Amino acid sequence: MPTIIVTLIGIMATVFAVSSSIPQIIKSIKSKKTDDVSIWLVIVLIIGLGLWVVYGIGINDLVILIANSIAVAINTILLILKIKYSKDPIS
Amino acid sequence: MPTIIVTLIGIMATVFAVSSSIPQIIKSIKSKKTDDVSIWLVIVLIIGLGLWVVYGIGINDLVILIANSIAVAINTILLILKIKYSKDPIS
Repeated sequence: MPTIIVTLIGIMATVFAVSSSIPQIIKSIKSKKTDDVSIWLVIVLIIGLGLWVVYGIGINDLVILIANSIAVAINTILLILKIKYSKDPIS
Repeated sequence: MPTIIVTLIGIMATVFAVSSSIPQIIKSIKSKKTDDVSIWLVIVLIIGLGLWVVYGIGINDLVILIANSIAVAINTILLILKIKYSKDPIS
């Protein structure tokens, strides 16, 4: 595969992965319901993304660092919504 | 940072990110409810992870290829549960 195409696929993969929680945030704000969303999904994801941030620092890769920092911020919003709008948050 | 620690952090980040949807799957199977889960979260995530698989093939990285293939499989299960247990699946 040509390098430019591989790089483009990598960038697209990052954009999709980072932005995947945005529709969930929009839905949660609109419905004010997050009962069926697992808080462990969000917590495990934030830990994983946080480790990617550390990894980005470790290998001095600014793309990994910035993309995952944005993803941590987005999923922290989702975590707040989960706790705020859930009858039983720890579920 | 020593290379061994950076590599370990990378592996841990991958394990957390790949396994983050598992608690959501367990919760959805138990409650048989996925109304509050956004189908677009799952679809955008599967597209992003699928692109990572292609990226893994492009740069010949077996770890990226295998980790993201597993993640695509896990999130496809979640997509099926979302459609099966949701009153209004396209939400």
